Amino acid sequence: MGGNIFGKALTLITFGESHGIAVGGVLDGFPAGIDIDADFIQQRLNARRPGQSRLTTRRDESDKIEILSGVFENKSLGTPIAFLIRNKDVRPEDYEHVKMVYRPSHADYTYEKKYGIRDYRGGGRASARETAARVAAGAFAMLLLDKHGIKITAWTSGIGTVSTGIAGFDASDIEKSPVRCPDEEASEKMIKLLEETEKEGDTLGGTVSCLIKGVPPSLGEPVFDKLNAELSKAMMSINAVKGFETGDGFGMAMKKGSEVNDLFINKNGKIRTETNHSGGIQGGISNGEDIFFRVAFKPVPTIMKPQKTVDREGNETILINKGRHDVCVVPRAVPVVEAMAALVLADHLLRNTTSRQ
Amino acid sequence: MGGNIFGKALTLITFGESHGIAVGGVLDGFPAGIDIDADFIQQRLNARRPGQSRLTTRRDESDKIEILSGVFENKSLGTPIAFLIRNKDVRPEDYEHVKMVYRPSHADYTYEKKYGIRDYRGGGRASARETAARVAAGAFAMLLLDKHGIKITAWTSGIGTVSTGIAGFDASDIEKSPVRCPDEEASEKMIKLLEETEKEGDTLGGTVSCLIKGVPPSLGEPVFDKLNAELSKAMMSINAVKGFETGDGFGMAMKKGSEVNDLFINKNGKIRTETNHSGGIQGGISNGEDIFFRVAFKPVPTIMKPQKTVDREGNETILINKGRHDVCVVPRAVPVVEAMAALVLADHLLRNTTSRQ
Amino acid sequence: MGGNIFGKALTLITFGESHGIAVGGVLDGFPAGIDIDADFIQQRLNARRPGQSRLTTRRDESDKIEILSGVFENKSLGTPIAFLIRNKDVRPEDYEHVKMVYRPSHADYTYEKKYGIRDYRGGGRASARETAARVAAGAFAMLLLDKHGIKITAWTSGIGTVSTGIAGFDASDIEKSPVRCPDEEASEKMIKLLEETEKEGDTLGGTVSCLIKGVPPSLGEPVFDKLNAELSKAMMSINAVKGFETGDGFGMAMKKGSEVNDLFINKNGKIRTETNHSGGIQGGISNGEDIFFRVAFKPVPTIMKPQKTVDREGNETILINKGRHDVCVVPRAVPVVEAMAALVLADHLLRNTTSRQ
Amino acid sequence: MGGNIFGKALTLITFGESHGIAVGGVLDGFPAGIDIDADFIQQRLNARRPGQSRLTTRRDESDKIEILSGVFENKSLGTPIAFLIRNKDVRPEDYEHVKMVYRPSHADYTYEKKYGIRDYRGGGRASARETAARVAAGAFAMLLLDKHGIKITAWTSGIGTVSTGIAGFDASDIEKSPVRCPDEEASEKMIKLLEETEKEGDTLGGTVSCLIKGVPPSLGEPVFDKLNAELSKAMMSINAVKGFETGDGFGMAMKKGSEVNDLFINKNGKIRTETNHSGGIQGGISNGEDIFFRVAFKPVPTIMKPQKTVDREGNETILINKGRHDVCVVPRAVPVVEAMAALVLADHLLRNTTSRQ
Repeated sequence: MGGNIFGKALTLITFGESHGIAVGGVLDGFPAGIDIDADFIQQRLNARRPGQSRLTTRRDESDKIEILSGVFENKSLGTPIAFLIRNKDVRPEDYEHVKMVYRPSHADYTYEKKYGIRDYRGGGRASARETAARVAAGAFAMLLLDKHGIKITAWTSGIGTVSTGIAGFDASDIEKSPVRCPDEEASEKMIKLLEETEKEGDTLGGTVSCLIKGVPPSLGEPVFDKLNAELSKAMMSINAVKGFETGDGFGMAMKKGSEVNDLFINKNGKIRTETNHSGGIQGGISNGEDIFFRVAFKPVPTIMKPQKTVDREGNETILINKGRHDVCVVPRAVPVVEAMAALVLADHLLRNTTSRQ
Repeated sequence: MGGNIFGKALTLITFGESHGIAVGGVLDGFPAGIDIDADFIQQRLNARRPGQSRLTTRRDESDKIEILSGVFENKSLGTPIAFLIRNKDVRPEDYEHVKMVYRPSHADYTYEKKYGIRDYRGGGRASARETAARVAAGAFAMLLLDKHGIKITAWTSGIGTVSTGIAGFDASDIEKSPVRCPDEEASEKMIKLLEETEKEGDTLGGTVSCLIKGVPPSLGEPVFDKLNAELSKAMMSINAVKGFETGDGFGMAMKKGSEVNDLFINKNGKIRTETNHSGGIQGGISNGEDIFFRVAFKPVPTIMKPQKTVDREGNETILINKGRHDVCVVPRAVPVVEAMAALVLADHLLRNTTSRQ
Repeated sequence: MGGNIFGKALTLITFGESHGIAVGGVLDGFPAGIDIDADFIQQRLNARRPGQSRLTTRRDESDKIEILSGVFENKSLGTPIAFLIRNKDVRPEDYEHVKMVYRPSHADYTYEKKYGIRDYRGGGRASARETAARVAAGAFAMLLLDKHGIKITAWTSGIGTVSTGIAGFDASDIEKSPVRCPDEEASEKMIKLLEETEKEGDTLGGTVSCLIKGVPPSLGEPVFDKLNAELSKAMMSINAVKGFETGDGFGMAMKKGSEVNDLFINKNGKIRTETNHSGGIQGGISNGEDIFFRVAFKPVPTIMKPQKTVDREGNETILINKGRHDVCVVPRAVPVVEAMAALVLADHLLRNTTSRQ
Repeated sequence: MGGNIFGKALTLITFGESHGIAVGGVLDGFPAGIDIDADFIQQRLNARRPGQSRLTTRRDESDKIEILSGVFENKSLGTPIAFLIRNKDVRPEDYEHVKMVYRPSHADYTYEKKYGIRDYRGGGRASARETAARVAAGAFAMLLLDKHGIKITAWTSGIGTVSTGIAGFDASDIEKSPVRCPDEEASEKMIKLLEETEKEGDTLGGTVSCLIKGVPPSLGEPVFDKLNAELSKAMMSINAVKGFETGDGFGMAMKKGSEVNDLFINKNGKIRTETNHSGGIQGGISNGEDIFFRVAFKPVPTIMKPQKTVDREGNETILINKGRHDVCVVPRAVPVVEAMAALVLADHLLRNTTSRQ
């Protein structure tokens, strides 16, 4: 009931406070016999870790993963896979000033109301640091998906007022951009906007888009655990996410049926759809076309401008932030979106094994 | 694992095919001692049922609920509440023409791929008729929420290209509009657009907005079961939903932190926020402000124009639809959105009882 | 959280009070494509229903099942299977005398303490009538197990002081005995004991034994969901059960390792064990040998002798029972034990599909 | 679905192989604000750890717990509590001889059939070492129960043919006995029997009894999650457990209703039962009397006598065991039984908060 458990056939539990000893997780239900490439998992964590460019937080975490169980001679055992990422660059003193004060649009106030106690150091459990465990778990899921030819690619599709549409691009271009935007022109504009915004002491929101190729028809469980519903929950559970849409999404609400129905065709002997406004999911079940969705992130709430707020007793006060913070979390959120998508897909791949006899 | 179960402390399972014997559900975990007003529950079902106006399907279902268990002398017993809504106006012959053919943007193809079998009559389990059970269950949840002063109001905020912003309006205006849009001008435009579209044999999508008042701070469970994540899943699990956003949603992605941070203030001795861009949720936990979200529905896929498609063997063919269908599902989806929101809120109200000692 | 949900891959929820409108259940996760033999399911219910002999309650229930969903043209759809058994021979007036009084060793007191309200008619939800839903659900599970060659047989192995050991017997002998004891001599003694005890106005406990043949190795999930642990919970959840043992059970506690270790042998090219003290389960996982367990039932608490008790206000009083009651529940519990075993086995058969890749 | 998750409101997941890096667990749903006495938790682990007397395995593990998250300034945060116990005295070489051979009545064969792979070192996940995580988690649960006045006491009630009945004794006598049997005479006989059996190279089974005082009426959820059903599953999930009974257990099966009904009385203004054959649970719900149950353990399967067995290819062979093993696991199982009971009680204490409004 605590809410730190995700997935049914493949179940992840995560733990850890930002400035505590460690963050980590346990994966239960991971099938036996999968080759576990520890380097690949570390590489996924590296993609998320702070300190990658001067636009991200300067907290310096190597984010080395320690796999504690469930892997034997580089193969999964079928038993729980537990892993640990120790917090190294911990500076609780950076948070002394928020011990008694609620940061606007952070979780300080709500955690304290809910639990009556709060680890104020770096947001505690509400920190984006928690997503490291998601990325590690997602990397295991990707090893499973890979055996089934399922490939997940996410990228930065918007930062602030700069955005880029979906179009043919090379996935390898994503990592060439410091902001993970494969559209070179947009990428440059984003960087410029980030630099300007940083100077202002302000922060930016943005969007991440995600494309999943190779998904066989049949994944997703009607009626509540529709694949789109599960993806939606997975994404909305990431810190700072405020919106989710799949296929043509909100745009579809303004269209007519004749404009967005995906007509079935026979393409070289295979049943396919002529268009893909549905984003690869119909009736909550994958139809074999590419899955596509988009996620909206709000701006980082920690800005370097003084802000009005209240303390624990309700007295109004002015908050002046310190510490090391991202101007925009979106580029580092790309691997988190991929990880959560991988966890959903792997869970549903396993769940689907019992749909018929 | 079948996906027909929703909620953790308050758990709903629903069942039923569109043209089978009945749809219904069972609620487990509903607390004992709640007054059960059967008229209120029937009234909620009436709000969803077909045949309310000439713009909706002409399938004529009285949707009379039969409560089978869990209620004794008009009070909840704490035992499972089972309820049943028999299908009366069943016309399987209306669906003979789709027995061997896949309707575009429906779930016919994906169900058959997943299960190897499909009840083709009216979409079977994938029919919007399934939402009747959600509405009934949601009505029970509302009886619980009502005791805690929580009030949920949804309305049609867009149909096709006609939309209306959030603004002060009287909730009682919603039911005065045949399309459940409290903005009289927009409502009239929507009706006109619906009439035109019906003549074309086409259909429309739209949006439903929802406002929840009276939610105490503390509801929602970090990190995966954030209140926004659970609402998102609940909404995305409704047939035809393609997008979800909370607070300022996708709009927030284009903003700066200084523009959308909700500053804390002391309002008459209470900690409140000056603005509510967050939509009443911070860190996945309600903060005591109004919860607000918006849901995007795609157009009804059953249009009255001939469409290309394939049959079960993959042969291309032309589909000409028959039967009784809505031009736009959005007005009838309003009580479904309210019901799902009620189920999420009630579940989290119960879950929150164990957050601290 | 309500506790009326059983199983993970194959999930059953049951509902219904003894003298309410109906008892029933919903099975979610039942695979598509299984032939549903409605006669077989009715036959299983007939085996449990009251009024079978003069030794059982004279409540006359035909227990006709109505299948509401999930089955189409005699095949499972993969969608939830809901079923209903209406209560016909309802006599609430038989229970007026216990409205204000707690029956000893019944659930009257504990339900009222827990829920603050109780359906006093026939024990409400705590009635053995609830097991009808288990038997119906178990019959569906048996249809699935049957495809895999798994066969469950239970019988009465003890009533009061009369018991019978496990030995070679013909399963068809079970139904020849009015008390479901395949040992003819023991069966006769049991009947005589039951008749004597009925005259005394007293009741009897007993044991049910169960043998499961055809279980492949691999079923059961370490570490908490061991197959024996799940069978144990399933059996202990049946009304009146006080003990469970598997294999040599409590007897094993008094033995040495050398006496009860099951040595592996090669039997015609197959790995088998020479003995089966383990009862077909090692490390919580089936090993391919017969699964065997034994369940202890306490005597029916409703006796026809006056008993001391208290009323709702705590005043001491004398209870004189009325109504129609079994002298011993064990013979009618045999199909309930089989049903619960079938639900556990079917659940684990499905769960095991994801143990490796 | 992996089976390593226990509990609903308070959820434990455990991980770890016997000779891997660590065993440990994560507790989700543990309420905020509980004082966490780390010494008490370590002390519970010490009670279970090997090397306590010459009758137990000589594997030398200090079993130092490291609490990784969920505790801040000695108070629970309401976030997941993760903990770790590193394996120190690891000797994989002791298990080289069973790499290709299945030990009788161990889980070697069933794990390999299920997963296609097995960590052969000390039984991997199937080792009793896994129970260290249960004991640590149970200790946290005890801190919660303690606030509610619930006190769990287990003891050795039988080893081999030596057993002791329930009778008035001082709980502090348990720890005075090297075998945790508070009956001094029985304790001495048990020790003698263990010494003799060790010389023979054989092993012994036994029973653990458990008494829980201070449980309020109302805990336990009908119908499947009855308190006795949950305790039963918890106990049967412990390695080597073959039987469970509550109250008078199997003995009750041989009795008449008039002999074992627990009559209600008014004792100093409180509703109590005159006797407690039910073992504190009626209708699956605690009734306020002491909860009592008994657990049967089979003998340790690792004996020091040569045994017939087969290798992975099915060839018959002779197994001669090496390594460090307990003659009887029962004394060290006492804290494991207490821990599992604590987890069940704490879970149901939390679950019961939503039973009524």
